[in-house]
Amino acid sequence: MTPSDPVETRTEARPTQTATLAEIAREAGVSAPTVSKVLNGRADVAPATRTRVEELLRAHGYRRRRAEATRSPLIDLVFHELESAWAMEVIRGVENVARDAGLSVVLSESAGRLTPGRTWADQVAARRPHGVVLVLSGLDESQRALLTSRSIPFVVMDPAGDPGADVPSIGATNWQGGLAATRHLVELGHRRIGAISGPPQMMCSRARIDGYRAALETAGLPVDQQLIKTGDFHHETGYRLGRELLERPDRPTAVFAGNDLQALGFYEAARELGLRIPEDVSVVGFDDLPVARWVGPPLTTVRQPLTEMAEAAARLVLELGRAASREAPTATRVELATSLVVRTSTGPPPAR
Amino acid sequence: MTPSDPVETRTEARPTQTATLAEIAREAGVSAPTVSKVLNGRADVAPATRTRVEELLRAHGYRRRRAEATRSPLIDLVFHELESAWAMEVIRGVENVARDAGLSVVLSESAGRLTPGRTWADQVAARRPHGVVLVLSGLDESQRALLTSRSIPFVVMDPAGDPGADVPSIGATNWQGGLAATRHLVELGHRRIGAISGPPQMMCSRARIDGYRAALETAGLPVDQQLIKTGDFHHETGYRLGRELLERPDRPTAVFAGNDLQALGFYEAARELGLRIPEDVSVVGFDDLPVARWVGPPLTTVRQPLTEMAEAAARLVLELGRAASREAPTATRVELATSLVVRTSTGPPPAR
Repeated sequence: MTPSDPVETRTEARPTQTATLAEIAREAGVSAPTVSKVLNGRADVAPATRTRVEELLRAHGYRRRRAEATRSPLIDLVFHELESAWAMEVIRGVENVARDAGLSVVLSESAGRLTPGRTWADQVAARRPHGVVLVLSGLDESQRALLTSRSIPFVVMDPAGDPGADVPSIGATNWQGGLAATRHLVELGHRRIGAISGPPQMMCSRARIDGYRAALETAGLPVDQQLIKTGDFHHETGYRLGRELLERPDRPTAVFAGNDLQALGFYEAARELGLRIPEDVSVVGFDDLPVARWVGPPLTTVRQPLTEMAEAAARLVLELGRAASREAPTATRVELATSLVVRTSTGPPPAR
Repeated sequence: MTPSDPVETRTEARPTQTATLAEIAREAGVSAPTVSKVLNGRADVAPATRTRVEELLRAHGYRRRRAEATRSPLIDLVFHELESAWAMEVIRGVENVARDAGLSVVLSESAGRLTPGRTWADQVAARRPHGVVLVLSGLDESQRALLTSRSIPFVVMDPAGDPGADVPSIGATNWQGGLAATRHLVELGHRRIGAISGPPQMMCSRARIDGYRAALETAGLPVDQQLIKTGDFHHETGYRLGRELLERPDRPTAVFAGNDLQALGFYEAARELGLRIPEDVSVVGFDDLPVARWVGPPLTTVRQPLTEMAEAAARLVLELGRAASREAPTATRVELATSLVVRTSTGPPPAR
């Protein structure tokens, strides 16, 4: 993992399977090679047969033995959307671990849906990677069953929703980050601090805003709902909601922008209104994308160790693959530490 | 392709092969299945045998027949370095074409070397993709022979060097872009225009600077070598060379920054010296990364249609795969048009 302070929970090893491939074949009324074909994602199986076999594999909790022998030297990496400005940091992390392990990375996009399509799962089953890293993207129950029956492990990075207690995942301490960002503003003397959150269906964005609230409350400051706007992590939203906040007669003197892209949108809103950062208004981002150092003024932000998180996710998925043969327990829920990076977009509030 | 004005050349179809797999086996003194194993990238072949077989395959110009039947539903995408800020645009383009064709994308990085390593070529031979798209990265002769013998087509996107007349490639009209950027500055009234180039070993960066020179010369302006700095396309270099240019007593009133990252470094240099963009100095980038719209002031730049170029490269490689069976000629050298996007980082020179 990393030198940061990981929060871990452990899951129990799963019960050993009972049904064999031959038993599944008998129950389905097909030959053992037909079950093999289904497991290998071959196209030459009648759809009805295939569905029946998949159902039995799932009902029996079948897990392929000796999966190592038949694995391709690949890791699958699946994004919710490649638009994400930090996708590159994640790709680099997975690529680092894959290269060291002699594996190649297969990239896909679930194209805006929060679970990748059925075709995707079939393709994965057919190519038999060492494991699957999902970014901000979950799997539905049948997809999980399909991967489990092939002994293809998976890990979710930075879960969008609550991934369920038994889904291995790597996250960051989002709540701590929201807390640190807001405390920094409080310590500079700000009393009216606004926020632009990410989409509420993503747990990471909820956690950040909860950290913001906690910082205000522990400082004895009121939480003004009018100063909390709901965004979607995109630049345009940071601009639009930034204007809403800054055009108020009682505008905040500082804003926690939820992520770096929204912070950059906020910069544009301030620029258009003739407000200087940080002299007239302070702003803090979240992520620490490379661009945060390049904008003017350089952005104070909460660093999320994205490359390290991706490396941890890739290492975890490979470890799960090895553990499947040993039935050894593994730490499967990890949060890596975030840290505040103070640059020059934050300063004391203007004298009034 | 795209509605832009493509520059095309055509290559001749290659001569039909003569030696069969059985003949290669006889000449190498091994069995035909052993030659098959080498072609399939299997590990269970003695290194000496393997080398001998590879040499014969190459000497005879062997090309696998019926390659379609044994292909995996994959496209390989190889980057010179994933650091590149525009890698995401390229990945998205290849991903779009792959998804429509029911293929997945395997991503690798040649880790700063200009040709990917030997291990990479072996892995590609073993996984038998439909084709390989190389970004700013070439192949050495033995790697080309290895892919050719397996009938795995490849296309180079935005060649770093001169890829050779028979290498299929997709580029952009870099020279036209450098010309348009510099003409824009000349038309605004600038007479002392500096430039920060990319690395001279990349043909794209040479072409941009040649376009810059052509614009000055056709406007009857002198080309001052002292105002042309050699960079490496990174932010830090734009900052450092930007300071060098701006600290001159006879500093230029405008700069063509070679790419967007160098332009952003130049912004930082201007900020530190208390110079306003565009009131005190104008700057033009190249690429039109998303961040060009987000910085203050939004950057005037030359748009390179990166996603469309990547789509064209992926489509071309699939077309070459189909053409191999038909021996049909294909347009294999294409340059897509660049276009100037005028934002607010450029204006008339300051009155002196």
